[in-house]
Amino acid sequence: MNNLNNNQSGVTFFIFGATGDLAKRKLYPAIYSLFREGKLNERFTVIGLARRHRSREEFQNDVYQAIQEFARYKIDQDDNWESFVQHFEYMSLNTNDLNAFYELNQLTESLEQRFDIKGNRLFYLALAPQLFGQVANHLRDGGLLNSSGWHRLVIEKPFGYDLQSAEELNAQIREVFEEEEIYRIDHYLGKEMIQNIEVIRFANAFFEPLWNNKYIANIQITLSETVGVGDRGGYYENSGALRDMAQNHMLQMVAMMAMEPPSRMESEDIRDEKVKVLRSIRSYSDTQEVGEHVVRAQYTEGVLNDKTVHAYRDEDSVSKTSNTETFFAAELYVDNFRWAGVPFYVRTGKRLPSKATEVVVEFKNIPENVYFAKTNQLEPNLLVFRVNPQEGIYIKFNAKKPGGKSMIIPVAMDFCQSCEVGLNTPEAYERLVLDAMRGDSTYFTRWDEVASAWKYIDSISNAWSQNTNDLQFYEAGSWGPEGMIQLLQKKGFKWWPVHGQDEAEVTWVQAKSEK
Amino acid sequence: MNNLNNNQSGVTFFIFGATGDLAKRKLYPAIYSLFREGKLNERFTVIGLARRHRSREEFQNDVYQAIQEFARYKIDQDDNWESFVQHFEYMSLNTNDLNAFYELNQLTESLEQRFDIKGNRLFYLALAPQLFGQVANHLRDGGLLNSSGWHRLVIEKPFGYDLQSAEELNAQIREVFEEEEIYRIDHYLGKEMIQNIEVIRFANAFFEPLWNNKYIANIQITLSETVGVGDRGGYYENSGALRDMAQNHMLQMVAMMAMEPPSRMESEDIRDEKVKVLRSIRSYSDTQEVGEHVVRAQYTEGVLNDKTVHAYRDEDSVSKTSNTETFFAAELYVDNFRWAGVPFYVRTGKRLPSKATEVVVEFKNIPENVYFAKTNQLEPNLLVFRVNPQEGIYIKFNAKKPGGKSMIIPVAMDFCQSCEVGLNTPEAYERLVLDAMRGDSTYFTRWDEVASAWKYIDSISNAWSQNTNDLQFYEAGSWGPEGMIQLLQKKGFKWWPVHGQDEAEVTWVQAKSEK
Repeated sequence: MNNLNNNQSGVTFFIFGATGDLAKRKLYPAIYSLFREGKLNERFTVIGLARRHRSREEFQNDVYQAIQEFARYKIDQDDNWESFVQHFEYMSLNTNDLNAFYELNQLTESLEQRFDIKGNRLFYLALAPQLFGQVANHLRDGGLLNSSGWHRLVIEKPFGYDLQSAEELNAQIREVFEEEEIYRIDHYLGKEMIQNIEVIRFANAFFEPLWNNKYIANIQITLSETVGVGDRGGYYENSGALRDMAQNHMLQMVAMMAMEPPSRMESEDIRDEKVKVLRSIRSYSDTQEVGEHVVRAQYTEGVLNDKTVHAYRDEDSVSKTSNTETFFAAELYVDNFRWAGVPFYVRTGKRLPSKATEVVVEFKNIPENVYFAKTNQLEPNLLVFRVNPQEGIYIKFNAKKPGGKSMIIPVAMDFCQSCEVGLNTPEAYERLVLDAMRGDSTYFTRWDEVASAWKYIDSISNAWSQNTNDLQFYEAGSWGPEGMIQLLQKKGFKWWPVHGQDEAEVTWVQAKSEK
Repeated sequence: MNNLNNNQSGVTFFIFGATGDLAKRKLYPAIYSLFREGKLNERFTVIGLARRHRSREEFQNDVYQAIQEFARYKIDQDDNWESFVQHFEYMSLNTNDLNAFYELNQLTESLEQRFDIKGNRLFYLALAPQLFGQVANHLRDGGLLNSSGWHRLVIEKPFGYDLQSAEELNAQIREVFEEEEIYRIDHYLGKEMIQNIEVIRFANAFFEPLWNNKYIANIQITLSETVGVGDRGGYYENSGALRDMAQNHMLQMVAMMAMEPPSRMESEDIRDEKVKVLRSIRSYSDTQEVGEHVVRAQYTEGVLNDKTVHAYRDEDSVSKTSNTETFFAAELYVDNFRWAGVPFYVRTGKRLPSKATEVVVEFKNIPENVYFAKTNQLEPNLLVFRVNPQEGIYIKFNAKKPGGKSMIIPVAMDFCQSCEVGLNTPEAYERLVLDAMRGDSTYFTRWDEVASAWKYIDSISNAWSQNTNDLQFYEAGSWGPEGMIQLLQKKGFKWWPVHGQDEAEVTWVQAKSEK
């Protein structure tokens, strides 16, 4: 695992959906960055696969354009672009056509020979999930799984629409691939600060003693977007914030925060602990419980960044009477010894004022009316993981106002990771492609995680389908509906603003790198 | 206590030693800053007292010079200098001469009438301790304690040479003043960050749970000076680092760090807890114990800031065979339930490479060979109070190296208080003069604290007097003798460098104020 030369026996990347957005924005740039950083040696090939006809030159040109536009390294004269791009091959392929897979296998074998690759094959399905089963079968029947190396399948969300459909999808894939060969991408798990959660928790004596219901008052996870649904209205109508964000990214973040220390820092052991968290999340048994703990809402017309934006119901491919939620917030409980009684508040939405992903740990405050609390309104201590777009950690605590006698002010200490490494933090996809190549599945979701997450999500969507009256509305450009605030208010809590430095009353120390 | 207009019934400051260094460098500037900040209204007078003859105008000019040179506010046209300085009066006084005190009383009464002061009198003895008893007696006999207001005596260190001499000195003063009228200055207690220790500890739920021998490995207190003895060789020969620094400042810092939460945040309750710490410090019973836990050393010729500086024995008024320590380090133990087994390491010395006062809390590290510790050399977490010259707090913890897989690096989060308020933090003396005026004795040392501190110090100096062979030597400009390092090494610890950001291996985030 410490070996940076990760493809000593080489690897073939099969990119299904090679002309799509994901491939262009994320996959080619990721492969290029790995190459530039020496994490990928010359023994690799990338076979782009899509229905469309492209010549090799056209494809290589597409890859060039994609990298110039989206990669964190720019191509320049000295960078051996030619030696990189000659590894890229394209084949027009109809996934219905088994014969095309025979042909693909022949192409693969010749490329393996040319680049001295020992049969390791990574199949990246940047495709609609309906095609997963067929592609898997054709890969097997076309002989692509007969090579001497390893075979791994990387798939993107959405993984099903509910537990049942996810089970069916999984069964199709499992006819061909073993669970340990399947890499289900949740790109949030590839983010620097999400991976940092376990380091902060388990490499510091400082935090672990406080990491339980004795010291933590609540945990707040915000994943806010400024964008609307754009041209994805058709997809979104069937998904909504619950399936699009909560089932995967948000529950994964809950699991990272809440998991017990694993028996070892190994992929399966970590995922064992994460699935235990997901199983311990209290499911809702009826519409009343869902009504109490969950808020769904949809944006109406509003002003965002000085521009008037449409209501959701006026977006392309969206029904004028749509009840799809573009905002989701919930109070959830992890019913185990560590977390009993500690609410996890999650919220996600589109057309919110600011794009941010943050995880806030609010510690229990010192007793009221003790010492300084008698004469000062003491704020609770916070530990905040800033996941996106800024990366960093900050701690908010109370200190003496300089010069004052017993005047206490909240101050913040900040470690801004993205300040430190500039704009050059590896992209989530870069890490994840590298991990898949290495066979490290730590940051991919295992089937039992997916299933447990759906079980919880289903308890909400089932209630929603019985009662459509609880949909709330919020103006585009606001932070969400009234119900979001009430969710916390009834326990005496409040949402901490994202980008905590906007809080006027905090003496904020902005971190800058000295190096 | 919250009333900023603290001298509503007025106050007369008697500055004994009015032509001396302390008065010029600290007291006049402090009074001026209080005036400028509105903490002192027009109902005050300052009577400068010393043997030397000065006219009122000469004295007022001395005060002007002192403030221009040493105060954090500069005098300019608009600042009503005339209205301020008219409150300053001078009287030449021989402390042997009781008649002079009668005269002083008459002067005082006329000034009290002029400035509408209701008899509150604050006697500041910036004098040699040998004079304390006589001055106290003459204050009483001269009628100065008969006014209708309060009478307070502020005295400077050194308060005795050992427990016995301190007791004698105290008895002399107590013939005239009650304990609650005596304000023993330890100017370290006036420092912003020392006062912040109790806020950090008691206004944050974050730190208190960790503040004990279960989580803290050791506490390190460094008080380093770059200066030599200068023209104070005569005084220093009889004092040494032990009496000059350890008995007062260093033990006070130990007490602030180690004390139990007081029953109330009131002066007497806080001092009750501090004296309990001082009583719990394990005394040394013989020379062998002192040899094991204490290091004394003296500087030899060396290079500091590119300049060759003399050995201590070559300084003015110092014996060529002097065994006086210019460096003191000790491992001490507070034998109570909270601190059993946690070493407190203290060190102070002259002619060290850097001027700094810092308190480092080193937390117990996570278990070896667990998780990340298997493949990384994990540093323990630190909480550092930077007392002087920079003021602030920082936390050192472990985070993920961006981009790396399971590579852990130490990072530091910094809250730099002096960055925040610029150069304009109130001086220790400013706070303390204000506190004495208010009658708040929290940050003054009570007699039982002084006595307990001497008891511990005597156990060291008694052992030293029986064995002079243990004096070590260190080059001026080095961090101290070999024995200082060994003191910690035997427990597997090391001194953390002051100004932690000099540590090359730490990703240091320098705080800057945004406001």
